[in-house]
Amino acid sequence: MSPKKPKIAVDMDEVIADALYKFVSLYNRDYNVPLDLEILPGNEIHHHVPEHANMKWFEYINEKGFFRDLPVIGGSQEVLKALQEKYEVYIVSAALEFRNSLEDKYDWLAENFPFIPWTHIMFCGEKIVNTDIIIDDRIKNFIDFNGRKLLFTSPHNQLITQYERVNTWHEVGIKLL
Amino acid sequence: MSPKKPKIAVDMDEVIADALYKFVSLYNRDYNVPLDLEILPGNEIHHHVPEHANMKWFEYINEKGFFRDLPVIGGSQEVLKALQEKYEVYIVSAALEFRNSLEDKYDWLAENFPFIPWTHIMFCGEKIVNTDIIIDDRIKNFIDFNGRKLLFTSPHNQLITQYERVNTWHEVGIKLL
Repeated sequence: MSPKKPKIAVDMDEVIADALYKFVSLYNRDYNVPLDLEILPGNEIHHHVPEHANMKWFEYINEKGFFRDLPVIGGSQEVLKALQEKYEVYIVSAALEFRNSLEDKYDWLAENFPFIPWTHIMFCGEKIVNTDIIIDDRIKNFIDFNGRKLLFTSPHNQLITQYERVNTWHEVGIKLL
Repeated sequence: MSPKKPKIAVDMDEVIADALYKFVSLYNRDYNVPLDLEILPGNEIHHHVPEHANMKWFEYINEKGFFRDLPVIGGSQEVLKALQEKYEVYIVSAALEFRNSLEDKYDWLAENFPFIPWTHIMFCGEKIVNTDIIIDDRIKNFIDFNGRKLLFTSPHNQLITQYERVNTWHEVGIKLL
């Protein structure tokens, strides 16, 4: 038997799935928010929309279909596939927050990451995972995690300095392959 | 801040949800398998059905609705509620094996265990959870788990002797409360 591979937990939204793009598209449709909106470091999308619409994201994200057609974040497919040679790669998403995201996320993964088996997908709330590495854009998921933490850059986390950061999947590949 | 509570991972099927009862009911409907069928120690339900029907469980379990109306296993609601005083109680189910189980399991938990918040529900494949205790009927989920393992009795595991066993939720309460 070959020695066990180290385990990596990889987040979905803003790490392999571009939820932010979908939010901007929907705000553009409903409130003329520009499609090339630049989100200021430290801000969330709802900081950049008309005041009367700044809770609208909650409606969008709870709709069936929101998570089904998110663009894939560049390089994630190729790098995750390469990482599987050296690591057990788990997708770990806090999907339980949104009931209607469950099937959409399952189907999205089946379409875009067919090389990840069901045994390596986890939909959770708190990320109480026992892996060696975690790649995530939300530092709340790092609090009780004992392994190596890689903060995947997203506008909302750009002002955070105390964690090892990866800006792109190319950088993840350089660090881990 | 109060000290952190120990964490418990609790399985769903055959531990808090009576999937076996549903299987027997469906086999009864389709193949006259008796409703009071006694499953021999070490056997699965499909060992007790007509040979031409012994793969039928796979069809049943993949149908929408299978997991939506399972009976609650006796005592699980009361004991889990009591355990929450002393522990962080997480429900951890290998739901990703069956896409159509995701919403059913979510809705079933909301109906029968409304006191478990979404942050404490995990639908996974492999149970790579970082908890202090696990309660499960399948020993495959114990292999990489470092904490205390409680094997919840189900016919299929009755011949297994090397793990600490709990036969009922009353026994879980006596051990952990």
